[in-house]
Parts: sequence; structure tokens; C-alpha cells
Amino acid sequence: MGNPQERPVYQNWNPQRLYVRSLLMELESSWIVGFVDGEGCFHVSINKHNEMSTGYQVLPEFTVVQHERDVQVLYALKSYFGCGVVRRNHGDRMAYRVRGLKHLMERIVPFFEKHLLKTKKQIDFLKFRTILLKMTNNSAHLNLEGIEEIRCIKEQMNKQTKIESDSFGNRRDESSEIPCRVSSDLHEWCNDLGAVSTRDSVKL
Amino acid sequence: MGNPQERPVYQNWNPQRLYVRSLLMELESSWIVGFVDGEGCFHVSINKHNEMSTGYQVLPEFTVVQHERDVQVLYALKSYFGCGVVRRNHGDRMAYRVRGLKHLMERIVPFFEKHLLKTKKQIDFLKFRTILLKMTNNSAHLNLEGIEEIRCIKEQMNKQTKIESDSFGNRRDESSEIPCRVSSDLHEWCNDLGAVSTRDSVKL
Repeated sequence: MGNPQERPVYQNWNPQRLYVRSLLMELESSWIVGFVDGEGCFHVSINKHNEMSTGYQVLPEFTVVQHERDVQVLYALKSYFGCGVVRRNHGDRMAYRVRGLKHLMERIVPFFEKHLLKTKKQIDFLKFRTILLKMTNNSAHLNLEGIEEIRCIKEQMNKQTKIESDSFGNRRDESSEIPCRVSSDLHEWCNDLGAVSTRDSVKL
Repeated sequence: MGNPQERPVYQNWNPQRLYVRSLLMELESSWIVGFVDGEGCFHVSINKHNEMSTGYQVLPEFTVVQHERDVQVLYALKSYFGCGVVRRNHGDRMAYRVRGLKHLMERIVPFFEKHLLKTKKQIDFLKFRTILLKMTNNSAHLNLEGIEEIRCIKEQMNKQTKIESDSFGNRRDESSEIPCRVSSDLHEWCNDLGAVSTRDSVKL
């Protein structure tokens, strides 16, 4: 594998690890904002969960999905934020995702507070942050009234009222849903609540 | 509409133009690279065209497609590069696209030569640039031998041989196509050749 002296950049280099994980690229904050403006997703699920006193589990998630050919970028994001996991999403798609409330509040939210998104995804981020704050400060996810509040906010995420003019100059006010590619493998879920969710995402 | 003195930023401000076009956001190069890494596409079509001496027209294109809610970002890209158009792509999708050989060579290529893409889209860009250079320097698009060369290169774009290990540690060498969302309205085409193409994209 060559002389270790030739690899000063990777102090913890391990030949057993995947090649794609050891050659981490350096990312700039502005590039990350652009990439997340394009490919990122702030998402909250509310799932049935018999072991929760409310019967429901609230699952916030930050995700970036890429074709497997660009898995290096996902590992670079994981390294930059110092949290989250890289997993196969479905088919040939890989996902970088952060689910733990602590990591979301301490790593993801401060970054996007400092480096503003330029697309309307910024609005989704602000709603996502509002939900996280309600969970952190008021434990809103642990009582039915709080969960209903979260549901109301989350239903306005990843869809936006369009108020600009259309190509014919007509003013329009209509809501359209923005597809958000999130992981479907909820059985892998492991967040601060220390519970495994079901796949049944429900409306309260 | 208020005192024009209050709008020093927009010297050519025109109240008849769309609101979304007049409030241009400023973009940083690093953000653009991240956004194009996520949402951009370098694409070349070879279409039947009876008015061309070869019977074919070669159509290179740089495109960024977004949901219409984020059309401001596309106008900002147009402003940054100083070329291209923003048009409806299909449905609720809008596209920023640059098609003219001169604009591609003078505005788009130098930008991405200076600011490197971080995903494998960089490989697509390099192949795209090779085709543009063949068109510019050798007029490769004006003879059948050159068009065949272009076709060989273009067939390797937006698909990559994956040579990293898979999640089981097995080394794989397989080719997978990366979807590239490009405009379908070829009737709107207007590039340096000054000709309108057909919709019939063909293999030679």
C-alpha cells in the first residue's frame, strides 16, 4: 500500500475502509449552500409508535440524496458537519442524513442560520427550525397538542404558495408540492428518542 | 411606483417586467458550483436537420432546471453569466439554458475551468468542453466524420463507470445512466448556426 510517509493528509488512513471514504474532499460553506439548495431536504415525519405515550413519534431529518457515483460528496458532507450517516437510500441512490435532535440543533441549524439558502428551501429550513425549537424547548413532540402544532407547520413544508406572475403575466396564487427525496428505510431510524419507528407515516 | 432615485441598484428597472426578474439576487461562484453540481446539466444532442449539408445538427446545451417557485435563481444565473434564456421547461419546471456556441465557449466553459465541479459532473463538463473545442477549432459539427467523433464522446456523458466498491466491499465496474433534465422544446432552438432543429434526436 506504499509508504505511510507518502500519505500525510490522512493520519487515520485505514486500507480496510472503502476507497471513497478515505479520499475526502474539502468543501466550502458556499458550495454546500448551493448543493443543498439543489439537492438537500428538510423533512419531518410523524409516525405511529405504540411505545410512545402519545402513540406517535416525531422524526425530523436533514437529507441529501445523490447517485452512488457521487457518494464521495456525501461522505465529505458527513465529515464537514461531523455527524450523520451515509446509507443506501433506494436503488442506485445514496443518502447523507442527520436525524438526531441534538446533531440537528447543534450542527445543521447553526450552519444554515449563518449561511442562508438562496432558494425557497430557506422557508422550509425556517419551518424545520421552528419545529426543532418546539421539540427542544417545549418538548412539543411529547404531547398531543404539541404534535398537532408540529403537524400544522410540517404540512406547509416542501410546498410553497407561488405569488409571482406566470409566463403570461397573470398573477397566480396556488400551492404546489415540491418533491422531497427522503430515505424510506425508517427501520434504520435511531434518534435521540432511542426508539425504532414504524413505516406508517400518518396524519393526526 | 415611487421616486426613481430610490432604486439606484436597478438602473434599467422597468415596472412592466416581471417582479421576479427585477429583484436579482447576487450569487457567489462557489454557490453556483454547488448548485450546478446538484442541478446543472451539460448535454449535447445530434438531431436530423434537412437544411444542414450533413443532414444533422449538433446542439450543445448547458441547462439548470428548477421548480417555478425558484425562477429567481435562474434569472440570477442568467444575469451572472450574461447570456442564455429562462424558459418554461415542462409542467411547473423552469429552465435556465445556454445554447449558443459562442456563449458556451466564452462564458460557461471559462467559469467551470476556473471553478471546478466537485461531483462526477466534472467529467461530463470536460467531455462537453472537448466537443465544444472540436466544434470551434475543427468545425467538427459540419462534417460526418466530426459528427461521429462527437457522438462517441456524447454517448459517454451523463453516465459513468462506477469503479468504487459497493456496500459489501465488492469492486464493481458497471455503467449507469444519470438522468439529465433538459428542455424538450427544440423548436425554440436558436444557436450560432441560425437554424431551427427538428425534435428527432437520432443516433448516427
